[in-house]
Amino acid sequence: MRNFSTDHRWLSINTATVRAQWPLDRIITECAQRGIRAISPWRDQVAAIGLERAATLLRDTGIELSGYCRGGMFPAATPESRTAALSDNRRAVDEAKTLNAPCLVLVVGGLPGALAGHAEHRDLARARADVHDGIAATLEYARSVGMPLAIEPLHPMYAADRACVNTMEQALDLCDALDPARSGALGVEGSERAALGVAVDVYHVWWDPKLQAQIARAGAKRLLAFHVCDWLTPTRDLLNDRGMMGDGVIDIPRIRSWVEAAGFAGYSEVEIFSAQDWWTRPGSEVLDTCIARHRSVV
Amino acid sequence: MRNFSTDHRWLSINTATVRAQWPLDRIITECAQRGIRAISPWRDQVAAIGLERAATLLRDTGIELSGYCRGGMFPAATPESRTAALSDNRRAVDEAKTLNAPCLVLVVGGLPGALAGHAEHRDLARARADVHDGIAATLEYARSVGMPLAIEPLHPMYAADRACVNTMEQALDLCDALDPARSGALGVEGSERAALGVAVDVYHVWWDPKLQAQIARAGAKRLLAFHVCDWLTPTRDLLNDRGMMGDGVIDIPRIRSWVEAAGFAGYSEVEIFSAQDWWTRPGSEVLDTCIARHRSVV
Repeated sequence: MRNFSTDHRWLSINTATVRAQWPLDRIITECAQRGIRAISPWRDQVAAIGLERAATLLRDTGIELSGYCRGGMFPAATPESRTAALSDNRRAVDEAKTLNAPCLVLVVGGLPGALAGHAEHRDLARARADVHDGIAATLEYARSVGMPLAIEPLHPMYAADRACVNTMEQALDLCDALDPARSGALGVEGSERAALGVAVDVYHVWWDPKLQAQIARAGAKRLLAFHVCDWLTPTRDLLNDRGMMGDGVIDIPRIRSWVEAAGFAGYSEVEIFSAQDWWTRPGSEVLDTCIARHRSVV
Repeated sequence: MRNFSTDHRWLSINTATVRAQWPLDRIITECAQRGIRAISPWRDQVAAIGLERAATLLRDTGIELSGYCRGGMFPAATPESRTAALSDNRRAVDEAKTLNAPCLVLVVGGLPGALAGHAEHRDLARARADVHDGIAATLEYARSVGMPLAIEPLHPMYAADRACVNTMEQALDLCDALDPARSGALGVEGSERAALGVAVDVYHVWWDPKLQAQIARAGAKRLLAFHVCDWLTPTRDLLNDRGMMGDGVIDIPRIRSWVEAAGFAGYSEVEIFSAQDWWTRPGSEVLDTCIARHRSVV
């Protein structure tokens, strides 16, 4: 297991962590000043400063991506919205390519309409079939440009409105169904990373009794991203009350030992949504704390 | 599948549903007046009116139990608290026996101290081992008095503070480990109900892609209780924002069809914690709505 205590060369900042404080250009320069080598930006933050400007800033600072957030949201109640979702995913793949991301993270979606508070149906199996078909279509396009797709299983509390893929086992079953050969992103045999894999976020999966076994099953080829934050007790909000690493109950080093034992050697990406705490603090304090906690408790 | 549309003979009320409105004695008489044939009371509500008085009222009204809430909370950081938890579970078994409950429901507990906001360790595997051992000890006592134990897998969002058994598969693995023979509650071969089984609450398990298969695996002997309410979008609180059946996204009839296909023929127990909605309404409105929704959407 890599020693993180002496530096933060394997720290990445998911830009949602300081989204309330700074626009993306400022986030990039603040990270660069601190020797943070990677970020994972969200599409709306990229769009706010412009895709080309984001790409230029990344090149100029030498900061690379640990992932791009996000594609997905496949389930749809009408053919039109299904087509729109697939088009949007192709654009996300293109943006990820422009930014030289190692993968596009997929938050696959739940029951159509549920995120707006009015689910158009209650058929979770149908939503899951939509996800299967949506990933299949997006994978074909992503392969054509060489962009790996990382399915992010989301915590079951988001099954209705954000993602109906809720365990590593379920995500890996999808990978097996859609890319049984673990082919490379460009279809090359023997590639280091599969065209389709998973993003492991400890917040979503820490509770799973099968986590260790499923991480081993994924292996290096399918472990495309590793996200950290912490689970607070109590958790005051289902979406925006994630904790800073070390402030909650997740045994992060243990889970990191599992992903590294499976061959993962990439960034540890901090992604914290925190309306009542970290989003209210100065961005510099947040980044400095991420660096300190990366060294001490990740 | 049983037809619930013409009567409510298979409706049970978990007494937490109207706990903010009425003490247990009033709940029992209000249920009796409406032809509700079963309840599932919580220990603190029983204690508030006295165990003997509760037993007398149940006998007098002819209302039976669909379960008794609850035992569990096994993980402990010290030998003293471990011993105290086991003693408390024996008392819960005795109370369940006095009230002629068909099973004692187990909410197994999470990381010790987490419910109070200060987890004493982060070792989920250790907590799960404590749960295994705690159920084993309690099962021995429960068998001696003939009281089945129903492990209730809780939604993964409660893994830290309320229950580290979070899927049907995990609960059934525990049952297989502790009672492989599916022995009857009194150790009699061929009993209708096993000494150790599960309580299936749709709120906790509706998201699980393996739910149908695990319900089939449980079978009639291990399906000891069936709880209903609904998952709201958005859900505003992790604990106390459950919805009335029909107001959320859970396909309750589908899940009921699965438990009945597996041989379950007992009560459909309504358990709604709702600080901002149902607990603020008159108890009579809540019970009448439970009856109407039981007929129309369960």
